Amino acid sequence: MLIVMHHWAADKEIEKVKRAISAMGLKPVAIPGAERTAIGVIGNQGWVDDAPLRGIKGILEIIHVTRPYKLVSRDFHPSDTVVRLGGQVKIGGRSPFLVIAGPCAIETGEQILKTAQFIGKLGVPVLRGGAYKPRTSPHSFQGLREKGVNLLSEVKKTTGILVVTEVMSPEHVEMVAEKVDIIQVGARNMQNFDLLKEVGKIKKPVILKRGLSATVEEWLASAEYILLEGNPDVVLCERGIRTFETATRNTADLSVVPLVKALSHLPVIFDPSHATGKRELVSHMALASVVVGAHGVMIEVHPDPEHALSDGPQSLHFKGFERLLKRIRAMEGFMKTLKEET
Amino acid sequence: MLIVMHHWAADKEIEKVKRAISAMGLKPVAIPGAERTAIGVIGNQGWVDDAPLRGIKGILEIIHVTRPYKLVSRDFHPSDTVVRLGGQVKIGGRSPFLVIAGPCAIETGEQILKTAQFIGKLGVPVLRGGAYKPRTSPHSFQGLREKGVNLLSEVKKTTGILVVTEVMSPEHVEMVAEKVDIIQVGARNMQNFDLLKEVGKIKKPVILKRGLSATVEEWLASAEYILLEGNPDVVLCERGIRTFETATRNTADLSVVPLVKALSHLPVIFDPSHATGKRELVSHMALASVVVGAHGVMIEVHPDPEHALSDGPQSLHFKGFERLLKRIRAMEGFMKTLKEET
Amino acid sequence: MLIVMHHWAADKEIEKVKRAISAMGLKPVAIPGAERTAIGVIGNQGWVDDAPLRGIKGILEIIHVTRPYKLVSRDFHPSDTVVRLGGQVKIGGRSPFLVIAGPCAIETGEQILKTAQFIGKLGVPVLRGGAYKPRTSPHSFQGLREKGVNLLSEVKKTTGILVVTEVMSPEHVEMVAEKVDIIQVGARNMQNFDLLKEVGKIKKPVILKRGLSATVEEWLASAEYILLEGNPDVVLCERGIRTFETATRNTADLSVVPLVKALSHLPVIFDPSHATGKRELVSHMALASVVVGAHGVMIEVHPDPEHALSDGPQSLHFKGFERLLKRIRAMEGFMKTLKEET
Amino acid sequence: MLIVMHHWAADKEIEKVKRAISAMGLKPVAIPGAERTAIGVIGNQGWVDDAPLRGIKGILEIIHVTRPYKLVSRDFHPSDTVVRLGGQVKIGGRSPFLVIAGPCAIETGEQILKTAQFIGKLGVPVLRGGAYKPRTSPHSFQGLREKGVNLLSEVKKTTGILVVTEVMSPEHVEMVAEKVDIIQVGARNMQNFDLLKEVGKIKKPVILKRGLSATVEEWLASAEYILLEGNPDVVLCERGIRTFETATRNTADLSVVPLVKALSHLPVIFDPSHATGKRELVSHMALASVVVGAHGVMIEVHPDPEHALSDGPQSLHFKGFERLLKRIRAMEGFMKTLKEET
Repeated sequence: MLIVMHHWAADKEIEKVKRAISAMGLKPVAIPGAERTAIGVIGNQGWVDDAPLRGIKGILEIIHVTRPYKLVSRDFHPSDTVVRLGGQVKIGGRSPFLVIAGPCAIETGEQILKTAQFIGKLGVPVLRGGAYKPRTSPHSFQGLREKGVNLLSEVKKTTGILVVTEVMSPEHVEMVAEKVDIIQVGARNMQNFDLLKEVGKIKKPVILKRGLSATVEEWLASAEYILLEGNPDVVLCERGIRTFETATRNTADLSVVPLVKALSHLPVIFDPSHATGKRELVSHMALASVVVGAHGVMIEVHPDPEHALSDGPQSLHFKGFERLLKRIRAMEGFMKTLKEET
Repeated sequence: MLIVMHHWAADKEIEKVKRAISAMGLKPVAIPGAERTAIGVIGNQGWVDDAPLRGIKGILEIIHVTRPYKLVSRDFHPSDTVVRLGGQVKIGGRSPFLVIAGPCAIETGEQILKTAQFIGKLGVPVLRGGAYKPRTSPHSFQGLREKGVNLLSEVKKTTGILVVTEVMSPEHVEMVAEKVDIIQVGARNMQNFDLLKEVGKIKKPVILKRGLSATVEEWLASAEYILLEGNPDVVLCERGIRTFETATRNTADLSVVPLVKALSHLPVIFDPSHATGKRELVSHMALASVVVGAHGVMIEVHPDPEHALSDGPQSLHFKGFERLLKRIRAMEGFMKTLKEET
Repeated sequence: MLIVMHHWAADKEIEKVKRAISAMGLKPVAIPGAERTAIGVIGNQGWVDDAPLRGIKGILEIIHVTRPYKLVSRDFHPSDTVVRLGGQVKIGGRSPFLVIAGPCAIETGEQILKTAQFIGKLGVPVLRGGAYKPRTSPHSFQGLREKGVNLLSEVKKTTGILVVTEVMSPEHVEMVAEKVDIIQVGARNMQNFDLLKEVGKIKKPVILKRGLSATVEEWLASAEYILLEGNPDVVLCERGIRTFETATRNTADLSVVPLVKALSHLPVIFDPSHATGKRELVSHMALASVVVGAHGVMIEVHPDPEHALSDGPQSLHFKGFERLLKRIRAMEGFMKTLKEET
Repeated sequence: MLIVMHHWAADKEIEKVKRAISAMGLKPVAIPGAERTAIGVIGNQGWVDDAPLRGIKGILEIIHVTRPYKLVSRDFHPSDTVVRLGGQVKIGGRSPFLVIAGPCAIETGEQILKTAQFIGKLGVPVLRGGAYKPRTSPHSFQGLREKGVNLLSEVKKTTGILVVTEVMSPEHVEMVAEKVDIIQVGARNMQNFDLLKEVGKIKKPVILKRGLSATVEEWLASAEYILLEGNPDVVLCERGIRTFETATRNTADLSVVPLVKALSHLPVIFDPSHATGKRELVSHMALASVVVGAHGVMIEVHPDPEHALSDGPQSLHFKGFERLLKRIRAMEGFMKTLKEET
């Protein structure tokens, strides 16, 4: 931690800061400069809460050198985390590129079964389907809720496919975790800290989406909540952020994938459907995510996107999905060769 | 609703859109243009879910003319809502400008009592204090949780002051609502829809903060969730949004206050503490909020900001708060004169 | 300057950084921590270009403690700058709150003369009017250009009012500066550095608008360009920034006014017309800008906003402007009393 | 164009809007709805300036269906534009993926010659190098300016490589265009309209970078300025936008590449160096840009990035660049196969 003092800070204010640091059990080191003094802090083993310092007169800025997370950091866990999702399916490290697919929302038993059978036949190991739907307007379709979870659970039994669904409330976590293989925490709930703590207590893997306006640092700090409660099986999912640009639903920064992989040992996947909001862009970005090193993708596919109850315009048709899947597999193979050769 | 077709859209695609609109029980009106055709939709009584349309080939854009909210809209409820907070204290319409004050977090019984007595003596009718604290890092102070709610409840009994605190989980709503006068939904939970539904079922007023990256439309749609469940007593609270600028904690657009007052009948207050994150800016913005027509402010004040466990730098000292309060009262009086005279 | 090293940085990399700092004529001070080492830099008299350091292996982050500007900083020029605009009209320090008003674009001689006479009669000392208009589309009205400057110059002669207009190209600076009293650099040109250098060479005051996505730091660094060329008469103008919110034209953060006044000695004014883009919000925000300590406002007013060639919806009618002006004067008087009393 | 009226708009206001539309030579079509009336406009052949309408009482919103550009739109020019850069080198359509490389700034004759020879040997046809450097602080290195242009011109003669450099002022356009093959308009000047008009008059290709906070629509409207002056040879260059995220220099949305290719016939390239600001992310994103269909990349490479005078941390070493180039060529080949097969 570095405390930068104002130009006009007096000696007694600098002394006050030093004493406060000492009182925290840490060691202050003054760095006098031509314009102003800065005070370095030595001796902390991790994140320091700067509350006792903030507000002391004469302080211009407090700069944290240590990050607000530790368990998720690659600094303390250099090797990749590999998360076992169920059966032989794994993600992270050198596991095969994982494809998760399915409709935005579970609408009927038939719709979800049809999708599961179709993607299962293609070798896609995980089905997504929303039961609890976060919708801007209360006048929009809210999802089938518990009934949707049960439909997913039945499809899982019938087809053997792994299933993932979003949970929005701490109270639903236990029930849903019993019925599905993977729990998803959505973008709007990335800082629903009680929910994070709750999914930290279960024994199922968790997909943690990045919040609409969350920095990478905040996203990793949210993952830290889950690991700190005892659940190490977190998969990070980039899905675009909110910016001034409205031509796409969100702004999808793929450079975040290699960036996060450098900062953390957790697997990182990409959601091109929410990131772009436009079917015609999904395939481009899904393919690109293989290239930047994502461990997988989560794609919206629907038997009849024109009549989907939510997110139709960003859902692929079966035919388009099948074509994309072939391309993803080809790209995965190509990238392996590329790494060996160059 | 207006459906704008692509330049290249064929007649049969335009027909398909028209048929889909008719199938929704609505009436399509074609508006042919030189470059492209648009199709207007007539006959809807409120928000239309565009799911059956989205994804039809040839559609360039779907433009909603109707808003995703109705109950909160001034269109359907022209007169101001006045929310009774407890005792004689009201907010909204022509009620006096309301000041809510208190520490970011409840730390000790002494701290919160001292603050309650101080602001109560000054005539401030509502005390704020966080028990459940949303913190980026799990390594930061998380609040006293239920114990904090109980401390607040005791202070309420001792001093007779009204109290408000934030709730983060649906499961805590009932318990907390029994012990405090007003429930707050924080910025990070503005789209925690299960929480919104839960606070929609209680008989206590709710302060709904604007989300970090929520549009005004999304904010009002979130309020609609609460009203739709039966609770009409919602107070909107602007607290700044997240932008590229990091010189202040958030970017505080005061023009949102008159804008929202034109769109909705609900009372609107302003939180200058979170909006700026800097003590030296709080007073300026609090005073300005009176001028733009806010119905009140929520200000962080702490007996000893230098040792606050959270948000110390944006908390006012008692002395600074007392001075600000005098200025607010004077400004309130001045604005009344100004309106009469000009 | 502080150089933060990666967790894994080896001793020889730390030594390399130290040597590079020494080679720059500065002194390195190592601050070893539990997780990583940081290196403080002592001895610089101002902004240090970090080019020789950036890119050295093992560096995690370079943190500048010194700002990229010096001449505009209050640290080096504690007292307020007062800019003389012409005649007895001054801005900054304790000068009266300055109102600048006029149409977005100069359209006809009659339109601009009528406006000048109207505002002049009300005691407004400065007329604004755009001759060179930055427009998103080349198919929109581009301004009368040199002809517009001449119309402005004539109005100046006829009425004696001071005039300000925007310049978009370095080559026009000299000619325009001869004909008007104040030069404006628009938001889109805040980082048109050749233009900044050119207006730095003239003897006329310059209004420098904040860029659409410029940080406060970048804005002040742009002002530094002008001062460095020898022109000390810069007036900063906040006009809202671009964010995800589209309900207003821009997002107008008034807290920037007191913030910038603390960082710099230059006068700061506010443009509520561009900041909001909506006539019905302009008055609210103009009045609030008096309260937060702005030195003036620049307001769009038009004899016939319904037929304005640009920015009609944000322009006030004469009647509305007259009413606002009265309120501004009343508020100015009230704020003086308030400061004396509290 | 669609004019949406307020809920409370009276018949006479609706009539006023209709008359105004007729006065513009266009035809109004009323679309009465349950909540409000909307008025469609028919008959326009292109972008309509809405000035005569904006500001009429009762109007809630004016929605443009036609875009603020026409010449750059694929609607009016369905086939891809292929720009001839010099010699046999072309970009756009099915031309080979183009690599442009070189240092951020020209520093010495030796540095730029060495780079030209190195990349030339690898088959890279275009060298970039900044002579006029837009820098936030006037205290940073400003580029060699005319001397830099001359160094570039000499290297061109010596090696035969094509050269591109940025121009910041209209007055430099002619001189620079005589000495180099391609002119670049930088992100900070994307809305420097006088500059756009000037480069529209020359006979050399122009690379137009997207502005830091420019929407795709504004970017295309800026290209329209150039085409409208008579220069059809514009290459668009995405280089990341400014958002709340500071972990990367900018936020690089690759989905913009296929999006813009659908909207416009102009070639689109990608600048991974400025988009990310971090050397270790450049290769990932450059490779991904091939996959999403970019027509080329512009990459910063420097003989000695550790001692670069600007942008060192985002510049590749020669060795790293050579490796990336091999990968790009391999990816280009692979994508061709992929398209044929699937």
